[in-house]
Amino acid sequence: MYYHDSRLQYPVTVDKPNPAFATLLQQAIGGVEGEIRVCMQYFFQAWGNRAPTTKYRDMLLHTATEELGHIEMLATAVALNLDKAPTSLQEEGAADGIVGAVMGGGSAKGAIEHMIHKNLLSAGLAAMPMDSDGVPFNMSHIYASGNVAADMYCNVAAESTGRVLAVRLFNATDDAGMKKMLHYMIARDTMHQQQWLAVIEELGGDAGTLPIPNSFPQEQEDQQNNYNFYATAMDKSVPEGRWTSGPSIDGKGQFTVFQNEPLGDTPVLGAARPDSGAEQQQIG
Amino acid sequence: MYYHDSRLQYPVTVDKPNPAFATLLQQAIGGVEGEIRVCMQYFFQAWGNRAPTTKYRDMLLHTATEELGHIEMLATAVALNLDKAPTSLQEEGAADGIVGAVMGGGSAKGAIEHMIHKNLLSAGLAAMPMDSDGVPFNMSHIYASGNVAADMYCNVAAESTGRVLAVRLFNATDDAGMKKMLHYMIARDTMHQQQWLAVIEELGGDAGTLPIPNSFPQEQEDQQNNYNFYATAMDKSVPEGRWTSGPSIDGKGQFTVFQNEPLGDTPVLGAARPDSGAEQQQIG
Amino acid sequence: MYYHDSRLQYPVTVDKPNPAFATLLQQAIGGVEGEIRVCMQYFFQAWGNRAPTTKYRDMLLHTATEELGHIEMLATAVALNLDKAPTSLQEEGAADGIVGAVMGGGSAKGAIEHMIHKNLLSAGLAAMPMDSDGVPFNMSHIYASGNVAADMYCNVAAESTGRVLAVRLFNATDDAGMKKMLHYMIARDTMHQQQWLAVIEELGGDAGTLPIPNSFPQEQEDQQNNYNFYATAMDKSVPEGRWTSGPSIDGKGQFTVFQNEPLGDTPVLGAARPDSGAEQQQIG
Amino acid sequence: MYYHDSRLQYPVTVDKPNPAFATLLQQAIGGVEGEIRVCMQYFFQAWGNRAPTTKYRDMLLHTATEELGHIEMLATAVALNLDKAPTSLQEEGAADGIVGAVMGGGSAKGAIEHMIHKNLLSAGLAAMPMDSDGVPFNMSHIYASGNVAADMYCNVAAESTGRVLAVRLFNATDDAGMKKMLHYMIARDTMHQQQWLAVIEELGGDAGTLPIPNSFPQEQEDQQNNYNFYATAMDKSVPEGRWTSGPSIDGKGQFTVFQNEPLGDTPVLGAARPDSGAEQQQIG
Amino acid sequence: MYYHDSRLQYPVTVDKPNPAFATLLQQAIGGVEGEIRVCMQYFFQAWGNRAPTTKYRDMLLHTATEELGHIEMLATAVALNLDKAPTSLQEEGAADGIVGAVMGGGSAKGAIEHMIHKNLLSAGLAAMPMDSDGVPFNMSHIYASGNVAADMYCNVAAESTGRVLAVRLFNATDDAGMKKMLHYMIARDTMHQQQWLAVIEELGGDAGTLPIPNSFPQEQEDQQNNYNFYATAMDKSVPEGRWTSGPSIDGKGQFTVFQNEPLGDTPVLGAARPDSGAEQQQIG
Amino acid sequence: MYYHDSRLQYPVTVDKPNPAFATLLQQAIGGVEGEIRVCMQYFFQAWGNRAPTTKYRDMLLHTATEELGHIEMLATAVALNLDKAPTSLQEEGAADGIVGAVMGGGSAKGAIEHMIHKNLLSAGLAAMPMDSDGVPFNMSHIYASGNVAADMYCNVAAESTGRVLAVRLFNATDDAGMKKMLHYMIARDTMHQQQWLAVIEELGGDAGTLPIPNSFPQEQEDQQNNYNFYATAMDKSVPEGRWTSGPSIDGKGQFTVFQNEPLGDTPVLGAARPDSGAEQQQIG
Repeated sequence: MYYHDSRLQYPVTVDKPNPAFATLLQQAIGGVEGEIRVCMQYFFQAWGNRAPTTKYRDMLLHTATEELGHIEMLATAVALNLDKAPTSLQEEGAADGIVGAVMGGGSAKGAIEHMIHKNLLSAGLAAMPMDSDGVPFNMSHIYASGNVAADMYCNVAAESTGRVLAVRLFNATDDAGMKKMLHYMIARDTMHQQQWLAVIEELGGDAGTLPIPNSFPQEQEDQQNNYNFYATAMDKSVPEGRWTSGPSIDGKGQFTVFQNEPLGDTPVLGAARPDSGAEQQQIG
Repeated sequence: MYYHDSRLQYPVTVDKPNPAFATLLQQAIGGVEGEIRVCMQYFFQAWGNRAPTTKYRDMLLHTATEELGHIEMLATAVALNLDKAPTSLQEEGAADGIVGAVMGGGSAKGAIEHMIHKNLLSAGLAAMPMDSDGVPFNMSHIYASGNVAADMYCNVAAESTGRVLAVRLFNATDDAGMKKMLHYMIARDTMHQQQWLAVIEELGGDAGTLPIPNSFPQEQEDQQNNYNFYATAMDKSVPEGRWTSGPSIDGKGQFTVFQNEPLGDTPVLGAARPDSGAEQQQIG
Repeated sequence: MYYHDSRLQYPVTVDKPNPAFATLLQQAIGGVEGEIRVCMQYFFQAWGNRAPTTKYRDMLLHTATEELGHIEMLATAVALNLDKAPTSLQEEGAADGIVGAVMGGGSAKGAIEHMIHKNLLSAGLAAMPMDSDGVPFNMSHIYASGNVAADMYCNVAAESTGRVLAVRLFNATDDAGMKKMLHYMIARDTMHQQQWLAVIEELGGDAGTLPIPNSFPQEQEDQQNNYNFYATAMDKSVPEGRWTSGPSIDGKGQFTVFQNEPLGDTPVLGAARPDSGAEQQQIG
Repeated sequence: MYYHDSRLQYPVTVDKPNPAFATLLQQAIGGVEGEIRVCMQYFFQAWGNRAPTTKYRDMLLHTATEELGHIEMLATAVALNLDKAPTSLQEEGAADGIVGAVMGGGSAKGAIEHMIHKNLLSAGLAAMPMDSDGVPFNMSHIYASGNVAADMYCNVAAESTGRVLAVRLFNATDDAGMKKMLHYMIARDTMHQQQWLAVIEELGGDAGTLPIPNSFPQEQEDQQNNYNFYATAMDKSVPEGRWTSGPSIDGKGQFTVFQNEPLGDTPVLGAARPDSGAEQQQIG
Repeated sequence: MYYHDSRLQYPVTVDKPNPAFATLLQQAIGGVEGEIRVCMQYFFQAWGNRAPTTKYRDMLLHTATEELGHIEMLATAVALNLDKAPTSLQEEGAADGIVGAVMGGGSAKGAIEHMIHKNLLSAGLAAMPMDSDGVPFNMSHIYASGNVAADMYCNVAAESTGRVLAVRLFNATDDAGMKKMLHYMIARDTMHQQQWLAVIEELGGDAGTLPIPNSFPQEQEDQQNNYNFYATAMDKSVPEGRWTSGPSIDGKGQFTVFQNEPLGDTPVLGAARPDSGAEQQQIG
Repeated sequence: MYYHDSRLQYPVTVDKPNPAFATLLQQAIGGVEGEIRVCMQYFFQAWGNRAPTTKYRDMLLHTATEELGHIEMLATAVALNLDKAPTSLQEEGAADGIVGAVMGGGSAKGAIEHMIHKNLLSAGLAAMPMDSDGVPFNMSHIYASGNVAADMYCNVAAESTGRVLAVRLFNATDDAGMKKMLHYMIARDTMHQQQWLAVIEELGGDAGTLPIPNSFPQEQEDQQNNYNFYATAMDKSVPEGRWTSGPSIDGKGQFTVFQNEPLGDTPVLGAARPDSGAEQQQIG
């Protein structure tokens, strides 16, 4: 179960409220690389973790709980950036002249047209669980596979795209308060990338975890086709690289190249059933 | 651009058509770990790849094209499993007695109730781009971040959850034809896990790629908070592991532990604008 | 604006309530081929119709209004089929013995497991705007393109898949009341297929409407590539048919065959911007 | 920011693991009436609350934090119900004979066909953020309007449908452990219904909050049409009730009845622009 | 079944066509607080209403039918606002100079960039069933729970957020025609808020309806936890209010405060099954 | 299975990179009328085709494979239009002065606010499988009904709305490279409209295919209601046209007009079950 402190994890201040930046920040809340995603992903991985030990469940709970505070920070940042946002199409983005000036004198950045409209129309100038184009977050992006190594790579992927996003947001603004908040979030993403890779290492690294799932007896997979790169180019060119020759990453095979060709036949499904709603011509 | 061969990548045969297994196979087509996802993910990563070299773009095209053939195999497998599926609630899953017997004599496995209904009602006993519970695939799951290392981890994640899924399908059936098809797909997933990790290695491994994106000057991130594990437990317990002490995975820091506490203040958003649709009591 | 009559368009009776058939019927309410789709599609086509005349707008309003009554009929049918449905996992699908017998004596057809669970859990044994697997209808399926001929073909498509669905539902049940309701709906779908094709004919048929939109000067399209079938088979085989030779359907061209090959070059996107969140290796 | 305790809010035990009940429980996690919804709704209402006081923000944080523990309880309940669930179509729902017997001897309740398939295929027998038919939760259901009274009614609605759902789940199972957990959750829903209505009362009740938003000067709305019931029946019958006569609920008007008729004209949109992709016949 | 009149419920005129306002209006069509939502919600509540009387079913049909006319009004308003909207990026929002001037001389309000692009690209300058950011309406927002009191609160919530939205749209425009249409819609929302609360009153008010569902014997819920506010703040502060002491709203209990703490234990899920696709390390 | 050539189907060049046009182009990738839709629709129709002959399956594979190359062309076009797009709110859409000038001197067309934000934030200035407002493509739009005639009309509908879209894009830009690419795509859409109609003709035209499905014995449909236009106008006016009199399009009936009226009774669902979560007042 959970507790809260009404204070924020880290200071969130906005020097020059900018509705256009509020819009971009929404991606870090409800985008597929955003904080709702990692928060809920770590919670569901923790709650469903099956293992002889509760070690990884425990660790996941710590970080999921931390991430909840990140959503809060970002929601606060969006609301602050919307503080003097326009509520009518006649307004150039400022409730008073001072903010108008701050926003750049003649710039249209504060206009309703540059905001996600729902931030005004559905939320009254506050954050919503949606991305930077107003698309609500869909929980199918919570990856919790029941395989701890697969989950760790899902988490590395989430924190990698997450840090890429945070860097893009950092680069997109010149607001000192926002840059400070983001330089903190970028740092936390660094740690979290490390943390999930550390689990992989603790589980034995490449040799100890691959191929995922390692509980499937590898002799039951097709041993002719598990370490060869399939080349499909018409001109039979091959993109040479670490993946076309030499030992495989898990040390269990040798990379080779296969010029792809059909190993099967043309499939034959046969005629349709008379009562299946097909056209008469399909029934044969 | 693309070409096709009407033959299949690998043989697809079904010994005992089983609509319930057709249902499970749909996850490998339109589930978030399925083949549409990896196919389209690799295509979009290739088509949008920006780099001084086209090397990774090239490689991605090969594998995306290969994956398209996997969707085809699975769609064929679903259709074959639905070959003698019921079209009415009065039918016990067989168009003739022979199949009824094959299906297990009294087992209700072939009944419409055990199928995704849309496989009959929308597709006339064929595959659809949806998951094993009938939810259509949503293209927001195509991760192509513009950062090649982040993309590789997204791909490892996809192939790891993908191979976990293929193993579960392999375990769920006792049909020899289906097991053969899946033992091939499991092998290809093994290779693809290797392949994307090989790119990471070629890019310099942990040191050469982390933290992602490595183009952001790390001195601009919060150096107090980039290698410390945040502990949020009420009883201040810490899940000790590779991530709580020792050198970080990228060799650029030392793991430590931080008992989490608020570093910021309680946020104050202030009163609502009078014209923002708030309740009078909020306007202050 | 609109009026209602509390009576139904056509009688809806259920002889033997069957929750499993209620489930199938949901496809005709909230499936992509269902009645919400056509009802709302015709309304939006009507409301947005731009033309010198209001003729098509008028006609669309009539049929949209008719379709609203079809949703009502189906919602009633679902509720009646759920009338004695189970509310607990311990119950075999009947509130009393009579229904249990009717349901087939030992058959599990009435069990909660054979229902869309939301019909009980979210709606208390009533219809919902979702398909036969519980997926809510998404309004992106309302096609109203602003081009009247394109819209008519969208409508023919909707009524064709809709009648296919109605036939499948008719075949799936042996309930006389349900068969009667469906034999009426199948008939209305026949008329609606005719109706939209009649508009095409009134607009001048193939010659008068094609290619859609016919307001684009056809000499501005690529005249080398507007009537040739592209063949992409590796073995250069061509599926001969009405589309490979002879006059085109609109009478404005001759069908030919083109063995497909690249007409363009390999695209070069170039290196990533340094501030775009890419990996250092991509910046070049 | 937030803290966690690894213990559960309330005991969660399952006497007889039942995958079919796990399926139903999913509705309380990821259904639109479920706990993710209320948890996130209260958080977003809190984070975006604008008012001269932080009173309601504070209260919302308490209850949002409480609800997070409810998701955790339900996720645990789902996992426990899936503890011995089948992983193959050949298995009748039990990893050992004891559970098979418990499940009812011959009952097919534990079969894969009676589970949401993704609970096995995507999660390895654990909970997921989806509803009882496998549809992932969509965050558009987080209502946080920026108007505190509207939000309170959204919350009453959520807790009312939530308690209805919890009661249905309570009735659907005969497992003592599950009934105990649910009798607790039902009680919390009772309190939460009270709590949000208490806010309405504190804000002044009907007179103090209605019509919502009460900050809009009511003299600017159409005073001829704000307290009259519109009757649309063809036979001009009127459903008499509290809403057809007498003082309005807010005490600011008198209920009357209006036999509905068009107050406007037939709309005329006019012809399409020549460059708008319309058919030539629409351009006029 | 239903009838139509080709005239509008209320006059819809636009003095100065403004594509940016068309965009905002889309929220009232296809937003979660919009008219499709209430129209379809009332229809599904009516069609599924189970009760000894058809009284509420009847009333719901009247209002659902009324709401259909509101969608029509808004769709007309969107189309009229798009009447002279641009079709190319080179055009500043006007098909002729007159409109350009009307639009504000130099203002970019008519530019394609300020429109939902699909209003042009998919609909040819007409309304679509989507929200103000182009997200299609999802029918999962149709709440029809089978419990009449829960439904009434869902309806109050819908009409409250709906009127908040209408007020925001009213404030966002200075077009006299649009303000007139909206001042009518705001009035109807007032009535509808009243109407649903009138049902609650008719059902016996708080005492007669709470806790919802009132058909569940309240002695079966956890009587220790049904009227106490759970406080989760780290500093044990409590947000005092009507909900922390005094009689409960339904008169059936006394509000108290509980400093939240775990009442359960740490959950133990145990090891993964060997055939469940887990990592070997999880199997134990 | 499939092969690729790294060259493009047709040249894709952009004279003046324009992020606002990149945004519009996204509709042709991930809009419901876009290329992912037709590509996947034709693939699924092919893979599931049941018939005595593989003729249509073969043909569909050719065109599906062709369409894959169209997605590639458009993805390339989007990336090229984003080549010098802004990455910060301070930047007016150009990485260097030359592009700034090209973009129109003072025009804000290159500003981040005029882009789909995810093209930058999620993809690093590349295409994504989403529409022109940032909504991801949903695979429920892949229509493959199992009835070949219904499918052909779905395809005509897709290519008609697709060509309408392509024409709108052609009209929206003045970039010579983009116009060239689009004049090619418009031509291919012309051919594809022809191609699917050619199948209808080959199947016997209207008489040979209608009503769809033609395998349902037409004497089993309601012969009183299969060729009459239902009029629902209050004033009993009828929109006269080809559909109100004369022989039906399929030659199997005569069009007539029916002034619509209820043919059924008011439905009676009866009281709610006591254990179904209804309000006490509904149980009766």
